Amino acid sequence: MTVDHLSTTFAALADPTRRAILARLIAGPVTVTELAEPFDMSLPAISKHLKVLERGGLIARSREAQWRPCRLEAKPLKDAVDWLEHYRRSWEESLDRLDDYLKKLQEQEKKHGRKK
Amino acid sequence: MTVDHLSTTFAALADPTRRAILARLIAGPVTVTELAEPFDMSLPAISKHLKVLERGGLIARSREAQWRPCRLEAKPLKDAVDWLEHYRRSWEESLDRLDDYLKKLQEQEKKHGRKK
Repeated sequence: MTVDHLSTTFAALADPTRRAILARLIAGPVTVTELAEPFDMSLPAISKHLKVLERGGLIARSREAQWRPCRLEAKPLKDAVDWLEHYRRSWEESLDRLDDYLKKLQEQEKKHGRKK
Repeated sequence: MTVDHLSTTFAALADPTRRAILARLIAGPVTVTELAEPFDMSLPAISKHLKVLERGGLIARSREAQWRPCRLEAKPLKDAVDWLEHYRRSWEESLDRLDDYLKKLQEQEKKHGRKK
């Protein structure tokens, strides 16, 4: 189910700490202790965020190594971008239309100003 | 606060009905009744989703017209794409590294097979 998968990904991204964790993991796998360092947070609090990211399929944790490094799983992020990109042209057009409308308003105001 | 703003946007996107509503609004403004039509949902249920989207700044509802049309607000979607795009190159590289690793594994298996 692509739809539910996307919802889980977007929900996982809806938190600044989780986005910072993902940004850190892009550089390469790290341990939970290393991940927790830059945050003013307890290990259990970080672990809670990691579980959300793991459920969303955005990270994976090695079961073999004793230090259980976390690594980024890029596929769900790609799916999220793909969904947004699919509509990008349309909303960019809607931003352009807004620009045109505002320009027209300004021109009309100028004309109106001149006539006074 | 860009960070909280992004979290609200991602949270608003974390639902298939809300994403379908946004997709519909890209074509142009519509009334709540028109929006509700394709969904097997009550008007109050749709209104609840619209409120989440409105809080996330993804839609706006006209206060003037009696039929209060909903329209898309593209800026938060653009911010969400920008955040994801910023890391795109890195995670694409991580997908490439995975590809290379799998290719190497296959080659090693082939070599191993030949030696047998």
